[in-house]
Amino acid sequence: MKRILVIGIGTGNPEHMTVQAIAALKQADAVFVLDKGSEKSDLTDLRKAIVARFTEGDGPRWVEAESPKRDSAAPYEAGVDDWHGAKARAFARMIRDEMKEGETAALLVWGDPSLYDSTLRILERIARDEGIAFEHEVIPGISSLHALAAAHKIPLNEIGEPVLITTGRKLAERFPDTQTIVVMLDGGAGLDALEGRDAEIWWGAYLGSEDEVLAAGPVRHVLPEIKRIRAEMRDAKGWIMDIYLIRQKRS
Amino acid sequence: MKRILVIGIGTGNPEHMTVQAIAALKQADAVFVLDKGSEKSDLTDLRKAIVARFTEGDGPRWVEAESPKRDSAAPYEAGVDDWHGAKARAFARMIRDEMKEGETAALLVWGDPSLYDSTLRILERIARDEGIAFEHEVIPGISSLHALAAAHKIPLNEIGEPVLITTGRKLAERFPDTQTIVVMLDGGAGLDALEGRDAEIWWGAYLGSEDEVLAAGPVRHVLPEIKRIRAEMRDAKGWIMDIYLIRQKRS
Ligand SMILES: C[S@@+](CC[C@H](N)C(=O)[O-])C[C@H]1O[C@@H](n2cnc3c(N)ncnc32)[C@H](O)[C@@H]1O
Ligand SMILES: C[S@@+](CC[C@H](N)C(=O)[O-])C[C@H]1O[C@@H](n2cnc3c(N)ncnc32)[C@H](O)[C@@H]1O
Repeated sequence: MKRILVIGIGTGNPEHMTVQAIAALKQADAVFVLDKGSEKSDLTDLRKAIVARFTEGDGPRWVEAESPKRDSAAPYEAGVDDWHGAKARAFARMIRDEMKEGETAALLVWGDPSLYDSTLRILERIARDEGIAFEHEVIPGISSLHALAAAHKIPLNEIGEPVLITTGRKLAERFPDTQTIVVMLDGGAGLDALEGRDAEIWWGAYLGSEDEVLAAGPVRHVLPEIKRIRAEMRDAKGWIMDIYLIRQKRS
Repeated sequence: MKRILVIGIGTGNPEHMTVQAIAALKQADAVFVLDKGSEKSDLTDLRKAIVARFTEGDGPRWVEAESPKRDSAAPYEAGVDDWHGAKARAFARMIRDEMKEGETAALLVWGDPSLYDSTLRILERIARDEGIAFEHEVIPGISSLHALAAAHKIPLNEIGEPVLITTGRKLAERFPDTQTIVVMLDGGAGLDALEGRDAEIWWGAYLGSEDEVLAAGPVRHVLPEIKRIRAEMRDAKGWIMDIYLIRQKRS
């Protein structure tokens, strides 16, 4: 049997690695990487640094493929579906050609594998569509959700109250009533939708990395500054990863 | 200055400790512990095992106090407020009497410090009400949210869709429309509120520990079994920690 370990590596600080994740990485004969676009070299470098730091000797083989791109012209759901299909075929090729029976391959997933990451869905799809047999395990990691809260030293929830995790796209579509909202994957529409709202925001970009930047305060005071920093850093680095918590006034 | 490190220790598996958490623990001169009731000895044992495993020599001093109890007869919010006040006084006493200027104390928080944990609120309160000066840092940990998803090998969110994190109490008060809901802190009312619903559930108790138990399937098939296992294990161990994800049918 071929074995795939899906390992949460945290959000940019190699010290987010857990003892369990390190032990899993040490078992790997190969590391499979699909990276993309402008984030590619930074994120790949981080993964390489993690593998170098936490494995001994030659370490696992490094097997890299260009990540298929999502067709951003297609309608969202169809676009994602095609994209997952292409990723499934790319991973399937690696599992078929780049590892032997009895070997273990690691997939190093940013943050925690359960939040806004396609790896687990793609593995399901490979098992279903590509007729490849493998077993897999998932090792949890520090998500940007918790990296954000830790950096600001805040609880996510109000006492006994719910927390909604959503995307910039969804926030822009319909602003939720939930008092506490965490927004991930915001291309900018989410911050725009915040304009004029009576809420507090705790924002963080590149959390855990050397470029980490934080801002917090009433939306009407800090939103312009957040947008400015965001645009500047995205231009400078070629990509941005940011996340924020919003607390709306209780109605 | 006195320094407090609030360290997320994960949810029962000592291997959830991150490299950052281990480094923080090694800096600690003392570990402050407030534990309570029937969970007390098990959770305290886990903390002791973590300190023993990840520190060298004599390790940090172990300073333990009985945790004040929440008055469950009082209205919920007032009860919690009094309880946090009592905890703040207990921690304030430890900071005042059990550590010297320049020393570092660690608070070992279950899971991640940002989700349904009072430690950060209590530290704010000490700074505000008790007139004690200290600085503090927060080290994120593996939350039961991610331990649940990893154990079931599932993503929390549907593609691009939101996730609501809430409590058993809130679920019972008003069942949310959100398709995906994660329920924590359920005394039982949340599972009761699920009765008869058209949804799938992924449930886990004592995640990460030797007693870990999982169940998943359509609510109408697995809810009775979950309730039975839950009652049996709570009786056997004297306490239960469980969490579950619900996916409602898209309406
Ligand atoms: C494709 S999702 C992956 C999330 C990841 N699985 C996790 O658990 O954090 C990427 C989104 O996560 C958030 N994110 C991930 N890493 C981040 C970081 N270091 N700083 C800020 N936000 C981050 C951002 O909202 C980003 O758009
Ligand atoms: C007081 S809250 C603390 C949560 C913690 N800060 C975290 O990040 O997981 C306790 C609740 O967390 C969940 N929980 C914590 N550890 C768990 C575990 N090992 N297995 C299942 N649920 C757990 C349960 O819902 C429990 O009622």
